[in-house]
Amino acid sequence: MKKIIVVGATGRLGRLVVGGLKDYEVIRAGRSGPDLKIDALDFESVSDVFASIGSFDALISCAGVRAPFKTFEELTMEDFALGLSNKCFSQLNLAKAAIPFLTENGSITLTSGIIGDEPILSGSCAAAANGALNMCVSTLAAEYAGRLRINIVSPSIIENSVEDYGMVFDGFEPTSEKRIIEAYRRTISAPISGRVLCQTRSL
Amino acid sequence: MKKIIVVGATGRLGRLVVGGLKDYEVIRAGRSGPDLKIDALDFESVSDVFASIGSFDALISCAGVRAPFKTFEELTMEDFALGLSNKCFSQLNLAKAAIPFLTENGSITLTSGIIGDEPILSGSCAAAANGALNMCVSTLAAEYAGRLRINIVSPSIIENSVEDYGMVFDGFEPTSEKRIIEAYRRTISAPISGRVLCQTRSL
Repeated sequence: MKKIIVVGATGRLGRLVVGGLKDYEVIRAGRSGPDLKIDALDFESVSDVFASIGSFDALISCAGVRAPFKTFEELTMEDFALGLSNKCFSQLNLAKAAIPFLTENGSITLTSGIIGDEPILSGSCAAAANGALNMCVSTLAAEYAGRLRINIVSPSIIENSVEDYGMVFDGFEPTSEKRIIEAYRRTISAPISGRVLCQTRSL
Repeated sequence: MKKIIVVGATGRLGRLVVGGLKDYEVIRAGRSGPDLKIDALDFESVSDVFASIGSFDALISCAGVRAPFKTFEELTMEDFALGLSNKCFSQLNLAKAAIPFLTENGSITLTSGIIGDEPILSGSCAAAANGALNMCVSTLAAEYAGRLRINIVSPSIIENSVEDYGMVFDGFEPTSEKRIIEAYRRTISAPISGRVLCQTRSL
């Protein structure tokens, strides 16, 4: 049975993904565990935690969802640096730390989101972070071609978040739980790399 | 005659753009001037420099081209932070500082590039920076709709750089000088905002 580490396992997205991987051996990681305590921004500590697992077949990051929601007028460059760090660099850190422990042709899946593909007022920092993730994945895939695969899932608002965040995404079609689970499962199983899955852009 | 500040005016791209704006009043800015000395990463100083000009009709940033070229294995999160800062945050800083001084419906043009739209080995940091710029521009355009316009030009390798950097972009069609000048001129004159111009993606 394939062994998969899911980081951010106790968040809304992480719980959904973990629930959709019942036929895998899933190790739930995050700031509060529950199986592995991980601080995604601290490379050395993440690396030590992954080493304690030994090898694994896939890393899924559902982590790093926080970016400051402010207008551009309010945003400082420190806000941008913080947002990119929390939402993008943290996930790249997880990917880097996982690489030495992934089995041959193992899979890394990171998570971005619809903000930026479609504008959301006060969302420019989140948009920048999503853009940074989406745009570097084809380069990373090329660098590791034949050794491992790396993809991104970029959902719209998730069905289970509509009650709390629906106002921000009024008029956006939520990504169904089924579709999200399919996307993450596909990154584990299908021979794809350098892709951004679930990405939707209004015509 | 419209007054335009070009930052990074003495670089390869900046010289080209300045040469194509002879029917405008161009103020050449950059670390070494020649008309205005500017450190794009220092918001307060940029703001003071722009205030010394009073109002202007357009800001064009040809600045911020440096991002570390290393493999993902070599790149640290500090490298990513530095690359984003130099190539992306610096330009957002210029944009933020320019806004209060831009005339009504004035224009801001930032510069990204083809790396990331197409993978270049060791280019993941540059790709992330380009992606961050490309993805936040529609949000910024929406926030300032009716007040000012903001666009991005994303060229391939420029014809005048092929001799020095052509090996990295072997097989890439260079963006012609004519096309680059047209793109920047169009951002000044055309009623467009939130756009990424010159962007090319191989089919």
